[in-house]
Amino acid sequence: MAEIRIGMVGYAFMGKAHSNAWRQVSHFFPGVGQPRLQSICGRTRAAVERAAAELGWASVETDWRKLVTRDDIDVVDIVTPGDSHAEIAIAAARAGKHVICEKPLGNNASEARAMVEAVDKAGVRNMVLFNYRRVPAISFAKQLIEEDRLGRIFHFRAQYLQDWIVDPKFPRLWRLDKTVAGSGALGDLGAHIVDLAHFLVGQVEAVTAQTQTMIPERPLPGKPEQLAPVTVDDSAQFLGKVGATTAAFEVSRLATGRKNCLMLEINGSKGSLRFNLERLNELEFYDRTQPERLQGWNNILVTQKDQPYITHWWPDGHILGYEHSFVHAMADFLASLQGNQPVRPDFKDGLACNAVLDAVEASAQSGAWAKVAL
Amino acid sequence: MAEIRIGMVGYAFMGKAHSNAWRQVSHFFPGVGQPRLQSICGRTRAAVERAAAELGWASVETDWRKLVTRDDIDVVDIVTPGDSHAEIAIAAARAGKHVICEKPLGNNASEARAMVEAVDKAGVRNMVLFNYRRVPAISFAKQLIEEDRLGRIFHFRAQYLQDWIVDPKFPRLWRLDKTVAGSGALGDLGAHIVDLAHFLVGQVEAVTAQTQTMIPERPLPGKPEQLAPVTVDDSAQFLGKVGATTAAFEVSRLATGRKNCLMLEINGSKGSLRFNLERLNELEFYDRTQPERLQGWNNILVTQKDQPYITHWWPDGHILGYEHSFVHAMADFLASLQGNQPVRPDFKDGLACNAVLDAVEASAQSGAWAKVAL
Amino acid sequence: MAEIRIGMVGYAFMGKAHSNAWRQVSHFFPGVGQPRLQSICGRTRAAVERAAAELGWASVETDWRKLVTRDDIDVVDIVTPGDSHAEIAIAAARAGKHVICEKPLGNNASEARAMVEAVDKAGVRNMVLFNYRRVPAISFAKQLIEEDRLGRIFHFRAQYLQDWIVDPKFPRLWRLDKTVAGSGALGDLGAHIVDLAHFLVGQVEAVTAQTQTMIPERPLPGKPEQLAPVTVDDSAQFLGKVGATTAAFEVSRLATGRKNCLMLEINGSKGSLRFNLERLNELEFYDRTQPERLQGWNNILVTQKDQPYITHWWPDGHILGYEHSFVHAMADFLASLQGNQPVRPDFKDGLACNAVLDAVEASAQSGAWAKVAL
Amino acid sequence: MAEIRIGMVGYAFMGKAHSNAWRQVSHFFPGVGQPRLQSICGRTRAAVERAAAELGWASVETDWRKLVTRDDIDVVDIVTPGDSHAEIAIAAARAGKHVICEKPLGNNASEARAMVEAVDKAGVRNMVLFNYRRVPAISFAKQLIEEDRLGRIFHFRAQYLQDWIVDPKFPRLWRLDKTVAGSGALGDLGAHIVDLAHFLVGQVEAVTAQTQTMIPERPLPGKPEQLAPVTVDDSAQFLGKVGATTAAFEVSRLATGRKNCLMLEINGSKGSLRFNLERLNELEFYDRTQPERLQGWNNILVTQKDQPYITHWWPDGHILGYEHSFVHAMADFLASLQGNQPVRPDFKDGLACNAVLDAVEASAQSGAWAKVAL
Repeated sequence: MAEIRIGMVGYAFMGKAHSNAWRQVSHFFPGVGQPRLQSICGRTRAAVERAAAELGWASVETDWRKLVTRDDIDVVDIVTPGDSHAEIAIAAARAGKHVICEKPLGNNASEARAMVEAVDKAGVRNMVLFNYRRVPAISFAKQLIEEDRLGRIFHFRAQYLQDWIVDPKFPRLWRLDKTVAGSGALGDLGAHIVDLAHFLVGQVEAVTAQTQTMIPERPLPGKPEQLAPVTVDDSAQFLGKVGATTAAFEVSRLATGRKNCLMLEINGSKGSLRFNLERLNELEFYDRTQPERLQGWNNILVTQKDQPYITHWWPDGHILGYEHSFVHAMADFLASLQGNQPVRPDFKDGLACNAVLDAVEASAQSGAWAKVAL
Repeated sequence: MAEIRIGMVGYAFMGKAHSNAWRQVSHFFPGVGQPRLQSICGRTRAAVERAAAELGWASVETDWRKLVTRDDIDVVDIVTPGDSHAEIAIAAARAGKHVICEKPLGNNASEARAMVEAVDKAGVRNMVLFNYRRVPAISFAKQLIEEDRLGRIFHFRAQYLQDWIVDPKFPRLWRLDKTVAGSGALGDLGAHIVDLAHFLVGQVEAVTAQTQTMIPERPLPGKPEQLAPVTVDDSAQFLGKVGATTAAFEVSRLATGRKNCLMLEINGSKGSLRFNLERLNELEFYDRTQPERLQGWNNILVTQKDQPYITHWWPDGHILGYEHSFVHAMADFLASLQGNQPVRPDFKDGLACNAVLDAVEASAQSGAWAKVAL
Repeated sequence: MAEIRIGMVGYAFMGKAHSNAWRQVSHFFPGVGQPRLQSICGRTRAAVERAAAELGWASVETDWRKLVTRDDIDVVDIVTPGDSHAEIAIAAARAGKHVICEKPLGNNASEARAMVEAVDKAGVRNMVLFNYRRVPAISFAKQLIEEDRLGRIFHFRAQYLQDWIVDPKFPRLWRLDKTVAGSGALGDLGAHIVDLAHFLVGQVEAVTAQTQTMIPERPLPGKPEQLAPVTVDDSAQFLGKVGATTAAFEVSRLATGRKNCLMLEINGSKGSLRFNLERLNELEFYDRTQPERLQGWNNILVTQKDQPYITHWWPDGHILGYEHSFVHAMADFLASLQGNQPVRPDFKDGLACNAVLDAVEASAQSGAWAKVAL
Repeated sequence: MAEIRIGMVGYAFMGKAHSNAWRQVSHFFPGVGQPRLQSICGRTRAAVERAAAELGWASVETDWRKLVTRDDIDVVDIVTPGDSHAEIAIAAARAGKHVICEKPLGNNASEARAMVEAVDKAGVRNMVLFNYRRVPAISFAKQLIEEDRLGRIFHFRAQYLQDWIVDPKFPRLWRLDKTVAGSGALGDLGAHIVDLAHFLVGQVEAVTAQTQTMIPERPLPGKPEQLAPVTVDDSAQFLGKVGATTAAFEVSRLATGRKNCLMLEINGSKGSLRFNLERLNELEFYDRTQPERLQGWNNILVTQKDQPYITHWWPDGHILGYEHSFVHAMADFLASLQGNQPVRPDFKDGLACNAVLDAVEASAQSGAWAKVAL
């Protein structure tokens, strides 16, 4: 089986998660090929060398332009802040590399559209890392929906809530700066639940929205005396339509007590589903086709061998964690290379999400419904 | 202690709940006075006589106009469909009776306003039956908020979800007819969560909304062949503002698997609260003032003697049910008569809620934000 | 429909619960006949008169011997401490009254046996108030077992945990005095879970046990300086056999955080059940006959019209509380009078339970397994 | 930092879990040294070579005697069935290797005692893989107990329930054969909860027990027609004493619906703890030192940076899975080598557990309490 050589740009939180996935995938999915952690790229040599040692990469680069054109790289994996996604991905595609990119794909739909065009033109495989599609319970939810176990879907609702910036003294990191991050909770958290709506229910077509920056100034990192404006949203709420299905979304980084809490519920004429990322091994399914007196919310522990991805891990009932979804994503990406078949979510899915996020911002500014322009 | 003589108009589901409360209150709240279930009113003599026997009323009337002017009635309790609330309540107030009315107060704010004016002019005690304010866990939540245990409140979100009309063959009852019911899930369920927002956080000032009638035709009761249009909403989603606090609402009668599920969550800078009506004896409190490593969602079983209303019932840990909130409401109403003090939620609170519901409908029609006109 | 005249002996916690049941039953179960709360008996006239007023009784007695022989009493309901059950019940039976008795039936099996003999000889209806059999979720569990939805039953386990005497300063009430109470957590809490084992699975045949008095001395009520010995158990654990089914029990009044927490689980070859009294409206059912990938713990909200007792109360999803089980018990007792049919659990069931409790105490003392002598 | 060379004997489920831990540890715990997966041993060359490739080992052996004496091995890690633990571990210790062994340490206390003597005599580091001690929530529970947050501990109770052999057609694997496995659910599952009792509360001193083989015959693997006797227990229940603390245990492989469900609860005078392995990122803590009205079961998501092990993984709220506890165990073992300090649980802890399991079997046979012989 051919070795697939990976080059990764960036090495923060997502770099750690992707590296782990690249290291783990062949041990648990031996059939999909052997990735080689060829090179990792960061601007500061000492730091990236330390990262390479810790994360298991064979070499380092300090200029992503060099990395994306190296002959010994097959796949470029982009885990940088959002403002550099487009430039790197387009260059990588032009260099004929397959491209994986963290979400949201672009900092806006226009960037995402250019990225789609680049990978299409280059004919390279492309994936955007909406990793939660590959949490087994979510993949299983998708199966149940495809088997028509929910019937006509009336409602989709999702919240993605965190609380890491409740303290007003929490510093104004890059994630709170619009020029780098594009948006705040909306792009970081909202992107995930919009993508899950698309994955499970369908394309959001129009939205009405409000966004907030509740704490408008914060100290600069390392300079507790010096306040700087927060230029992204702390939180956002938006309502939308997916055909005749309603969709309701809320995201926040100020939801005290919610650590990494992505909750979703889907109500259909034949059944309903519930999911909570803080208990990601569980999927709750209400089956209205059962005898009425026996109907209830069935808490399915999605750790059984006939459920997605599980057979690769441990015996029934041994739960998985956050990082496993990344391993699944890389396994499916490698399989798509091996089988020369497309893989989803691809850059078009990334664009579809960016278009919704743009509409949310437009609606929040205009106070009117905004159509999603695809 | 003086006997308080009650006359009730209506005797369906809410009539049963109110009657139970009137019968039970003096046994568990002996200090508040003794209500006498004097007379119950309904249009059909045979039916109302059966109801009187079953529910424990001393006499019957078939014309509410007679009931509200009887000398031996002190309090008129209105549990009819929404389209007759205003007329009855205004007549009762004019006759100098204290008035209790089921929610929503009017079928629109204009009706509610006239009702407020009537009770103000007559100087009679008035209460609108947002009974969930008196679920002990909700009353306790109010206490915690008043003690400033949440700090600055960032977010309020609530859903009230049911599923009793998912079957398209479910008949087009009066609750699905706008001329009688005023609205559908919005007035029936939305009224409750809007009132809880008002009670716990503050007045909703403006909204953006969508409403749906997913199943536009249904068979008439007893005539399965004959379809009639459903003229009220099956479900609604709306976003609002309460000062700098965000508010997100969703209601549905098509949420398969949700039976009587009112969930709410409030996120503040110092703490958060969660509640679920299907587990109404529990309140979850996240206290950000605890040591960080010990912070969690604290599931408080609100059945302890130092929590609201509990000391009147059973020893610690013996849970209460749905109907107890009505007993609490009547106890507090009787206490207010005895002490000659106001009681909340009063008709003004009912109007505040109606005004929000009107704004939701206006926004759903216009596609723009609507201010709440108080 | 004939009126049934009730006389009750005792008026503490259980007196309040039984009185409520007698008052409520005809309003919610109109078909079973009309109880009349004829007379209530207590030793102290002033106190029993106050109780009569509050609880709704028409007259009082201060000598139970007079009450049980009054001509205008049909049913004697005994809610006194355990040491007087036998004497009162036997006298009532001899006077030809139907008898209801709180649990445990006797303070030991010998007392219980005499009570069985007395009611059998007198040919009167008799019931022991294991009220939890009539929590709808438990009645529903019984239905599921009778429908063979669990298959061969491997395991029964139950805990009944409270924490009201954790504080060593909590006074030495009568419940902590063996001469009055018979036993401690064992008779008070253990009796319930032993009865539920009998109801749901079958007769416990032999046990091995340990019991503890963790806090051996406590202040006398109202005399904080004066310590008196605690002569009953604070907690007990015991293992037993029901045919080939295992049974494991634990009870405690020192289980910090558990207020009134009766949990049980039954594991069978085809399915399993779980129940928790602090969430008494819910029954969890695991159905191993479902497709494997869809198997889970199905949380059934037992508030639906096709489930036991529910149709008498509120629409689907409106939860019931602790006291409703007593109403159901009285409804079924009245129905048994009306239909001239036996009702369970009767005094024989009470004896079966007492025999197990005796065996637990014997085993705890001997350190060996003890057979249950029926 | 010196490389530590590992040799592993066995490569089934536990081999996969240990291999993963050895591969992962230096990426997440870079300070503890670098293990090298030097050699893996199994009897069948082809199979062990396949395992070596998949699990990441550099070489293979087919005779464990050779592996344990190889010069290039520092640590011998034993993941074979229980009947070979003692022989391999003793040989490894004699060869001067540090030894890690899966649980239960021996198939009985006598074997375990010999193993303790061997490692003591050789002066080598030794660890028994009670990996659940290092689930962060359990490590955190230990901290809370050491901080005296529970006060005097009244009760410990634990169940470890699975259901993988409910089907009577499930084959009679080696785990169901006493000569290989030593015991059934008792040694496999009971060992874990006995060790957790020892870790969190103290040494179990005496027990009364019953064990069952509910399905006494099963088909041989691959031979559905040929039944063979099951010679180990399917389930066991036992009660014990830890000083004045009570302990109640139950294990089963026939608990339909329980997949890998280890639940424990500890009740103390100042607080209580609850844990469930199927939700292993959560610890529930009831703090009786809080104001009474605010007391509740505090669900702590043990994924915060100030809780054990978390800082090595992901940001707050990103949950861990089953296998992480093994990584923690190996990290601590490597740290103990580096720091030349003991590590727990060591072989003495393994012996303490085996002695309890022996007492359980003795009691189940004799029908009397059995003392734990240490």
